[in-house]
Amino acid sequence: MATLLGQPVADAILARVREGVAALARPPHLVVVAATDTAASRAYVSRKAAAAETVGMRCTVDDVPARERTTDALAARVAAWSVDPTVDALIVQLPLARDIDAHMVLEAVDSAKDVDGLTAENLAAAYLGTSGHRAATAAACVAILDYYSISIAGKRATIVGRSRLVGLPLAGMLMRRDATVTIAHTKTADLGAACRDAEILVVASGHPGTVTLDMVTPGAIVIDVGWARIGDRVVGDVAPDAATIVGAITPVPGGVGPVTVAMLLANTFDAARAR
Amino acid sequence: MATLLGQPVADAILARVREGVAALARPPHLVVVAATDTAASRAYVSRKAAAAETVGMRCTVDDVPARERTTDALAARVAAWSVDPTVDALIVQLPLARDIDAHMVLEAVDSAKDVDGLTAENLAAAYLGTSGHRAATAAACVAILDYYSISIAGKRATIVGRSRLVGLPLAGMLMRRDATVTIAHTKTADLGAACRDAEILVVASGHPGTVTLDMVTPGAIVIDVGWARIGDRVVGDVAPDAATIVGAITPVPGGVGPVTVAMLLANTFDAARAR
Repeated sequence: MATLLGQPVADAILARVREGVAALARPPHLVVVAATDTAASRAYVSRKAAAAETVGMRCTVDDVPARERTTDALAARVAAWSVDPTVDALIVQLPLARDIDAHMVLEAVDSAKDVDGLTAENLAAAYLGTSGHRAATAAACVAILDYYSISIAGKRATIVGRSRLVGLPLAGMLMRRDATVTIAHTKTADLGAACRDAEILVVASGHPGTVTLDMVTPGAIVIDVGWARIGDRVVGDVAPDAATIVGAITPVPGGVGPVTVAMLLANTFDAARAR
Repeated sequence: MATLLGQPVADAILARVREGVAALARPPHLVVVAATDTAASRAYVSRKAAAAETVGMRCTVDDVPARERTTDALAARVAAWSVDPTVDALIVQLPLARDIDAHMVLEAVDSAKDVDGLTAENLAAAYLGTSGHRAATAAACVAILDYYSISIAGKRATIVGRSRLVGLPLAGMLMRRDATVTIAHTKTADLGAACRDAEILVVASGHPGTVTLDMVTPGAIVIDVGWARIGDRVVGDVAPDAATIVGAITPVPGGVGPVTVAMLLANTFDAARAR
């Protein structure tokens, strides 16, 4: 079993971004709208801001006061950042509170500044193969496959999970790269069969242990998008024993995570350069 | 083998549309931009216009002179119709000539008036399950399954073809209905395996005989979206002998075709009512 480490992939992307940023007339400006108090979300926001600075970007974290965390107020806030000419890139830290209509808030992001690739327009672009920002996590999965020279065209790819952040855009991206793509999810009758059939298996269910030993084929390439803390361990969506028989797998932590942050910054650079 | 006739499905949809139109203050107005001289395309346009009139709608066919059939001129023409307040619904007859950028022209259609469901925004809506017009042919496939009480949730569905008109939106729609969806296409290594695995098989490859006897499972539900004239016969994408062993199949002609026109009018009614 080979380990598909994320850090070398991230390093290669970040080196390219750093070089590109240095050649720009002014540093790209990324705004992160943070309407959250959870420790995990705060940590993600800090990590993104720090990463942006290491490649020479400017990052503004917009801390939304608790009383302004309604759908309308957030959408208005995001819309204001969207038209702000000093802003190149704009993301909304997810998840938002349950009572907020995330779709409404995300649609207030100008697609050209939507470096998380989450607007409807950018999602459609992943399927149509047209220009636009690809969702950072989905793009990270593809970047890992490419970095390790794993061919995609003609392969059977199964994606477990149909989220706006990963499963949906990734299905479009892999299909555009000529994979035969199956989207499996919580309502899939025989998840094991769908997973065993895959030459490339991407697991983005958000639930540890979704894919177990009996559900993988020896030799398969597995991308584990999961990330959960259980006690003092961090685990992915693929059970540890399943990982031992596959051909290659991304570790958790240290797999998709660092590449996702790098792709976010690559999208930010692209957005700034395009303006 | 049961035959899933399209006409009863279309009739049920058209009856609902006719009733809805009669209750509106003014007839919905559909504009068809026709930049084509081919006999088949002209025939389609005439059929749509005639169908619109039978349900009490107004239909304008905008015959684009040959010299104005450039990407820029067509996009400008479509944009003008998009903002015309007398127009509820707007479609561009496809295919356009090869030298025209169809994506550019289609994106000039206001998504609210895009009753063919072909803008990026409407494609994304099919995946996100948000409001918007669903592509008429894709919606027709789902309408046929629903009319004949064929359950979708939890089923393995394979779609052959990844076009903007059928495969892409239908994958989103069936996934939203909880099917486990596989998108197969010309680069699929083993198309037979992908088709045999399907409980619901939708063939929209655009090539007669794409799916042959050895590629179907007895009992499968098959929707044949193909339509081609060979000599004096009209055939679908599924070979005739394959049709004999499946559980149920739409005939060609008389299957998806009439339902597609009905769905176009249903979308037109929805667009008019929403304004």
